[in-house]
Amino acid sequence: MLVLLVNVNTSAEATAQMAAAARLKAAPGTEVVGLTPAYGATGVDSNTQSLIAAVGVMDAVRRYPDPYDAVVVGGFGEHGREGLQELVDVPVLDIAECAAHVAMMLGRTFSVVTTLQRSVAQVEDRLLLAGLVARCASVRAVGLATRELDDDPAAATDAIVACARRCVEEDHAEVVVLGCGGMAGLDSLVSAAVGVPVVDGVAAAVAVAESLVRLGLRTSSLGSTALPDLSATSWPIAPGEHDV
Amino acid sequence: MLVLLVNVNTSAEATAQMAAAARLKAAPGTEVVGLTPAYGATGVDSNTQSLIAAVGVMDAVRRYPDPYDAVVVGGFGEHGREGLQELVDVPVLDIAECAAHVAMMLGRTFSVVTTLQRSVAQVEDRLLLAGLVARCASVRAVGLATRELDDDPAAATDAIVACARRCVEEDHAEVVVLGCGGMAGLDSLVSAAVGVPVVDGVAAAVAVAESLVRLGLRTSSLGSTALPDLSATSWPIAPGEHDV
Amino acid sequence: MLVLLVNVNTSAEATAQMAAAARLKAAPGTEVVGLTPAYGATGVDSNTQSLIAAVGVMDAVRRYPDPYDAVVVGGFGEHGREGLQELVDVPVLDIAECAAHVAMMLGRTFSVVTTLQRSVAQVEDRLLLAGLVARCASVRAVGLATRELDDDPAAATDAIVACARRCVEEDHAEVVVLGCGGMAGLDSLVSAAVGVPVVDGVAAAVAVAESLVRLGLRTSSLGSTALPDLSATSWPIAPGEHDV
Amino acid sequence: MLVLLVNVNTSAEATAQMAAAARLKAAPGTEVVGLTPAYGATGVDSNTQSLIAAVGVMDAVRRYPDPYDAVVVGGFGEHGREGLQELVDVPVLDIAECAAHVAMMLGRTFSVVTTLQRSVAQVEDRLLLAGLVARCASVRAVGLATRELDDDPAAATDAIVACARRCVEEDHAEVVVLGCGGMAGLDSLVSAAVGVPVVDGVAAAVAVAESLVRLGLRTSSLGSTALPDLSATSWPIAPGEHDV
Amino acid sequence: MLVLLVNVNTSAEATAQMAAAARLKAAPGTEVVGLTPAYGATGVDSNTQSLIAAVGVMDAVRRYPDPYDAVVVGGFGEHGREGLQELVDVPVLDIAECAAHVAMMLGRTFSVVTTLQRSVAQVEDRLLLAGLVARCASVRAVGLATRELDDDPAAATDAIVACARRCVEEDHAEVVVLGCGGMAGLDSLVSAAVGVPVVDGVAAAVAVAESLVRLGLRTSSLGSTALPDLSATSWPIAPGEHDV
Amino acid sequence: MLVLLVNVNTSAEATAQMAAAARLKAAPGTEVVGLTPAYGATGVDSNTQSLIAAVGVMDAVRRYPDPYDAVVVGGFGEHGREGLQELVDVPVLDIAECAAHVAMMLGRTFSVVTTLQRSVAQVEDRLLLAGLVARCASVRAVGLATRELDDDPAAATDAIVACARRCVEEDHAEVVVLGCGGMAGLDSLVSAAVGVPVVDGVAAAVAVAESLVRLGLRTSSLGSTALPDLSATSWPIAPGEHDV
Repeated sequence: MLVLLVNVNTSAEATAQMAAAARLKAAPGTEVVGLTPAYGATGVDSNTQSLIAAVGVMDAVRRYPDPYDAVVVGGFGEHGREGLQELVDVPVLDIAECAAHVAMMLGRTFSVVTTLQRSVAQVEDRLLLAGLVARCASVRAVGLATRELDDDPAAATDAIVACARRCVEEDHAEVVVLGCGGMAGLDSLVSAAVGVPVVDGVAAAVAVAESLVRLGLRTSSLGSTALPDLSATSWPIAPGEHDV
Repeated sequence: MLVLLVNVNTSAEATAQMAAAARLKAAPGTEVVGLTPAYGATGVDSNTQSLIAAVGVMDAVRRYPDPYDAVVVGGFGEHGREGLQELVDVPVLDIAECAAHVAMMLGRTFSVVTTLQRSVAQVEDRLLLAGLVARCASVRAVGLATRELDDDPAAATDAIVACARRCVEEDHAEVVVLGCGGMAGLDSLVSAAVGVPVVDGVAAAVAVAESLVRLGLRTSSLGSTALPDLSATSWPIAPGEHDV
Repeated sequence: MLVLLVNVNTSAEATAQMAAAARLKAAPGTEVVGLTPAYGATGVDSNTQSLIAAVGVMDAVRRYPDPYDAVVVGGFGEHGREGLQELVDVPVLDIAECAAHVAMMLGRTFSVVTTLQRSVAQVEDRLLLAGLVARCASVRAVGLATRELDDDPAAATDAIVACARRCVEEDHAEVVVLGCGGMAGLDSLVSAAVGVPVVDGVAAAVAVAESLVRLGLRTSSLGSTALPDLSATSWPIAPGEHDV
Repeated sequence: MLVLLVNVNTSAEATAQMAAAARLKAAPGTEVVGLTPAYGATGVDSNTQSLIAAVGVMDAVRRYPDPYDAVVVGGFGEHGREGLQELVDVPVLDIAECAAHVAMMLGRTFSVVTTLQRSVAQVEDRLLLAGLVARCASVRAVGLATRELDDDPAAATDAIVACARRCVEEDHAEVVVLGCGGMAGLDSLVSAAVGVPVVDGVAAAVAVAESLVRLGLRTSSLGSTALPDLSATSWPIAPGEHDV
Repeated sequence: MLVLLVNVNTSAEATAQMAAAARLKAAPGTEVVGLTPAYGATGVDSNTQSLIAAVGVMDAVRRYPDPYDAVVVGGFGEHGREGLQELVDVPVLDIAECAAHVAMMLGRTFSVVTTLQRSVAQVEDRLLLAGLVARCASVRAVGLATRELDDDPAAATDAIVACARRCVEEDHAEVVVLGCGGMAGLDSLVSAAVGVPVVDGVAAAVAVAESLVRLGLRTSSLGSTALPDLSATSWPIAPGEHDV
Repeated sequence: MLVLLVNVNTSAEATAQMAAAARLKAAPGTEVVGLTPAYGATGVDSNTQSLIAAVGVMDAVRRYPDPYDAVVVGGFGEHGREGLQELVDVPVLDIAECAAHVAMMLGRTFSVVTTLQRSVAQVEDRLLLAGLVARCASVRAVGLATRELDDDPAAATDAIVACARRCVEEDHAEVVVLGCGGMAGLDSLVSAAVGVPVVDGVAAAVAVAESLVRLGLRTSSLGSTALPDLSATSWPIAPGEHDV
């Protein structure tokens, strides 16, 4: 089984890290291929970047030449899954949604620890659209941008643990979700520190993808996820000037 | 990996059918053991029966002598998962909740096709408690009790297909969920008839169980799912007279 | 008029206290009979115990030999009312729900003061299912288990008052509900201390029962509360070993 | 115990009918005094009339010279209870709210049968404000204004029964509420016709008033229901010209 | 274009201030006429006063002898707009609702700064009825009654700024709404102090009125806002004694 | 005052029609400049196209060389406003949101008439995100794609009127919103046919833009709408191949 794990930012290094973390938890027989969009932003921390990234993500998947069984979109709160679900007929999973689904099966309430305060809005909006807010105790920010997580990993980890602790103690979260693709791999450490299960969205999404593929389930081809008529749609789009 | 699939009714035949259906879709290496409670009801179609069944289910799991990796509770709308999550530390999955989680990843809205009109209330209540109603387009009943499904399988199938069709055409459901453990195995047939993905809760729950086990995730041991102090609790309970 | 007040735990002493408190506020002509389940838990502070208690409660009511006019289930957040409503045709009242109903008629918002933090979840779930959360300002825990309330009544009272004060001052509750059958009788004291009406669920439920009986109203016999077909249901159930 | 039952319209005949119906179901020892506002509208079927009626209702209660134990406002969807709760310190009950509270204790869902389609909006708004919509299956109109109910009682009754039947069959209501003070007394007849409990708001509110008085509970004097500073408020107000 | 700006309290001075503030921001060609009800309260801080004020507001508009193009009701959380919408066929705007509508177009979340804690309830209720709570981060009170705002303007302004700051910092409001007609004119100052857009409801409502008039849009004449049959309604009503 | 009206599709003809309709209702002194994205789709009827269109819309606004006072995004249910609000500091209005805001001020409930059934999902999602669903009675589709509206205008108009009539008669909508930029200009005709106010989103958004500009209000620069750090973001993007 081959799962395409498409990063939402343009950092090949981040893609590699995320794919490596995913492979550690994937089932035997699952091949995880990391894809980096050819354009977008090196760190996606706004709606502007998220919308460009969504097109870059669709472009990256569309260009992938070989067959695959599922797509995981590695962005926590970013746009894009809703478009990809129309374009491809294999399952398309969003790591924010998968993390919430998994968290809800492990406890009555969950909290999300994300990067910047402005990302809280995007995460909340994505959960709202996906119908996953009823058991969400809180979405809290550590105050670091996606790219800053790598600058000082130790400090970032401390901030994430402190934030997760507030989710547990103040918001009564029974499960914590790591709300950024760039936090992949920190789940065990944070869980050990705060004493509740911690869900890494990338691992969760790959596991869900494996399940859906094995069950033979695909995205609905009726309704809002049906293949649209793209005959009069600009495609591809790439960085560069166009004539005005 | 060993998954305990515990039926909520006391029909060993129903347990066997459900376990057989589950094994067809389980991953290689997953052993599915069907458990039948020693007491409860041969078909659970009310809250009274559901509450007795919940205790029977906890009793059955508690008596199981060997190690296991996850528990799937095979009731659609029945009580019980909330108790078992406290008692055991491996993941405990409810087929109604798992079916909804899986359905939400395959389309924007889902409907549930259940047995009797009175079961609609129980299914709606379970989804409400689990925080899974926002994307539920409808819960519809075919008008047959659990035990009647087996009496005339062909008629039951026709009724299920007709009901699923109304979900798609009138309620704009993009995915349909089979809302009774006794409907396990009909998913492909119904999907072919109505043209949208159809989720069988038993298969969904086993797949989710496999994922959680592989990811090393367990139910939260903090908060509402923590192990309670059962020192002054009557246990076991069994059919039979007691002194008043 | 005879009202059965069935305790959810197995402490005959607790039943006697609750019934005595109820009698102090019952109308002239109302006889309150306290029932103690033959099995369950001496204090119900978890879903596991609550599910066993629900069966014990149904068993106790079912065994009661004489006629009665209404049943009050003396548990705050426990399972059971939904089953009893099917089994008997006189009104069945849950003290948590009755307390909320009464509180909503006395002010715009109410808070519940309950025992343990884990019980908060159960109280919230019961109010959610009953459709009574919209005007609930908060559910707060004093941090004492049901059985601990009796160990040091003075300390328990202080903790309850302090918790009620936070509900009023921080959550702007205009009414406070005592969220545990074991707190029956403390309403006047807490009200005097915090300055808002305080509702004792047992007294509230008995009063509601009296009203419904006088109005000649009974539980609906159509839909989710109709009498189920119990022909193939294990009954009675009692503590003791059964053959596996 | 003396309960003031204040009509929201200015028809003394309607007040007398409502009070007579209430007395039939009141407890022994409860005296029901009907009050008719000195101004307002002979039938209240709009927000304009409802707002004038609210002031007339407050005026009528304020002028009542003798002591009383509770006030019941006999309007289904009208304004006014929120003002009276501030003005008097005995319990103030709204028949729409009381009917909903009582209905929720008799089944899982209830529907309201009201007069005109435009009244549906007012009933829905009142239930929304009171936090009582979660278990409301529907609010349906029979298409007759309040005053038309009396013109042809037989036809009105037929229309009410037909409307109640749709609530049960199409909306799966388990309890029906008569959504107009002018329908008082029809509950038994409608219940016999449609097979579910039918709640008459006036009887329900008087019963609730009796309970609250017996329990010694009063409206909260803290928060939104506290007595306001009325020193600089025009009062009384009466029909007649004023200088502009 | 002539916009009637009707105050909800009876202070002609407050009307004049509000109208002056409105004129500063009105479009060229918009005439703002301030109306003061002949009765009601000099400051409206409760439901009792709000209901009397609503009738006074309808009375004032009804007596206005000349043509006008729109009505703005200058109360933040008061009753009345729902009645006026029935009575007149030009647009009727409520400053609380208009402020919320405008705020929602300037940021993802908004908070309201109002006068007394008890007014919080009324503002929340009005937003709830108008369907405008989903993006409301909080409603906070400065702790001063309407009439106190004028007693010490400097202290009032400091309290408003401090309160607005908490909305931004603790509740993550991206826009602040001044929740009292008497705060008109403070928007620039508060905005400069807290760094987010601040919406003055009076200015917002006049601007909305101008837009609707220019677009030729009027209140719906079908449904809950249709002209009611007022033939048997007491009118006018004025301060003074009536015979009982 | 100059308002940029940016189409979400790439049809210059559609832009011209929309801008012409907008100018008919704009205030004197308002200049409406129509912008057509250089890439995207000739008709946007899916999430895929909507995401590409959002980038095209941001690109078109970003390239506009002269000053402007507000931006109106002419798409009903499309992505994009959330990105533009970050990029520019003048007000950015979405026609779906503005139409809903205006409709809510004209009646208690509104319905949206949109193009295809699949667009219903997108419109519902946009209203959900904007916090504008509470008073939305329904979103209904006429069953014609955006581009088909122009093929047979008479048939399209008939279909729109028939759909609006169902909204009024079955869903009790008091106001109807035309849910597609391509329906601009049909409001009077549909309103005359169905008897309720009909809101054209483009006209509504231009009017709102005029108001906000006159009031001196701008999008919040704090929180989710603040200018992001775009230093490492691919820009511009244009149709054409890029190296993989």
